[in-house]
Amino acid sequence: MNFFDRLADEIEAKDSLVCVGLDPVPSRIPDGVSVAEFNRRIIDATSDIAVAYKPNAAFYEALGVDGWRILAETVEEARHSAPVILDAKRGDIGHSSRRYAELLDNADAITVSPYMGTDSVRPFIDREDSGVFVLCKTTNSGSADFQDLEADGKPVYGHVAERAVKWNEENGNVGLVVGATHPDGMEEIRGYAGNLPFLVPGVGAQGGDAEAAVEYGTDESGVGLVNSTRSIIYAGEGERFDDAARESAKALRRTLNKHR
Amino acid sequence: MNFFDRLADEIEAKDSLVCVGLDPVPSRIPDGVSVAEFNRRIIDATSDIAVAYKPNAAFYEALGVDGWRILAETVEEARHSAPVILDAKRGDIGHSSRRYAELLDNADAITVSPYMGTDSVRPFIDREDSGVFVLCKTTNSGSADFQDLEADGKPVYGHVAERAVKWNEENGNVGLVVGATHPDGMEEIRGYAGNLPFLVPGVGAQGGDAEAAVEYGTDESGVGLVNSTRSIIYAGEGERFDDAARESAKALRRTLNKHR
Repeated sequence: MNFFDRLADEIEAKDSLVCVGLDPVPSRIPDGVSVAEFNRRIIDATSDIAVAYKPNAAFYEALGVDGWRILAETVEEARHSAPVILDAKRGDIGHSSRRYAELLDNADAITVSPYMGTDSVRPFIDREDSGVFVLCKTTNSGSADFQDLEADGKPVYGHVAERAVKWNEENGNVGLVVGATHPDGMEEIRGYAGNLPFLVPGVGAQGGDAEAAVEYGTDESGVGLVNSTRSIIYAGEGERFDDAARESAKALRRTLNKHR
Repeated sequence: MNFFDRLADEIEAKDSLVCVGLDPVPSRIPDGVSVAEFNRRIIDATSDIAVAYKPNAAFYEALGVDGWRILAETVEEARHSAPVILDAKRGDIGHSSRRYAELLDNADAITVSPYMGTDSVRPFIDREDSGVFVLCKTTNSGSADFQDLEADGKPVYGHVAERAVKWNEENGNVGLVVGATHPDGMEEIRGYAGNLPFLVPGVGAQGGDAEAAVEYGTDESGVGLVNSTRSIIYAGEGERFDDAARESAKALRRTLNKHR
């Protein structure tokens, strides 16, 4: 089943656009709680609110060989509750990207970097049931350095969005990563992006605009995702961190639903 | 010790610019030889020729949790013979890139993707003894899609090269990935890139130009790297694959040295 069709079902069933990022930092996890347990409890506490989970590979790779085992366990656990987007930002020459695309054996969708162009993205897109979110305009300050360069009358991120529309024609499985920290830019990007769903990070700890995220981030059917990580998973400290995460995820759902 | 100083010593001691890529594909490895053993034998056979080894993370991630163990073993093994460049093409918002930068605990250098800009690259550069190779102009056909877009009178890859020169001012540990499959482009990129050393893939299986790789890929001290992977590690089939790899690596060294 197409990733975005599954996502549409989740969004309807849970009345939510909330994607929960799972980026565990051991020093921020309560004493006596393992990373795997931390993730499991966050997932359990948010399973009726999160329409997707998004573990960022960086936080698992930093844990060494153990990290990949924990990532595999976390993905397996999360998939009982919602589709999983592996936030990996991968991309390589076609020959190598084909190997990276095997990461999709253990995830429902992935984020990819567009810098190396069509053949670097194709192995992911060729997996017709998998979702592929292409980095377009990211939340960080450095996003201005190259993404904002103007070429042929539009910024590089506009070229990426238009190319992604083409990539989507084959299997209808492409979305864009568009940061909520540039609310004016979101409207502009929607102009380049046709009907592609956005994965919108940056609402929460990074201070992004929830209204713009919903208005411009969702496609004509209302499919899109707003991710929050730190403001959910680190909402509370101590033993009841999962309850705090639940409350924070519910609050985000309410905020977003006001604008749907 | 600065990565490029170490590399200069290797280049002098081994009279070589050869970097050997370690991208094991199980189906191409002789029966009865494990991936770890394959890598170990390639390393042993090329240790007096290779001035760096470059395992591409894609080929290890595709092997699942085991792959990360094999990667760690391979890196440890290779570092006895030469510095190791983890070809990971990572890059994320600063907060997440800081976790990716921990990959440098187990490598001497890394490749990074520039799409997300300065703060995505900074955590790598801040490791002053580590080398950081920034993707500039890659070997593949898709490199034309966004890298070649013209902005303010120069292509995006020119902007990346110029920015990398700035990034290098702090710790002198930045290089560029510039494919040998665009020999005319290499001269142009050298114009943007000041004295940065290049890591040049694409000589070998991908058909790139060895002369241009040496002429434009090395800095004023003659420091640079020409990587070959498939034409070395899969030079021969069957039990004597390591001897064939050695002969292929020696041939590449000879070819490159003609142009130094």
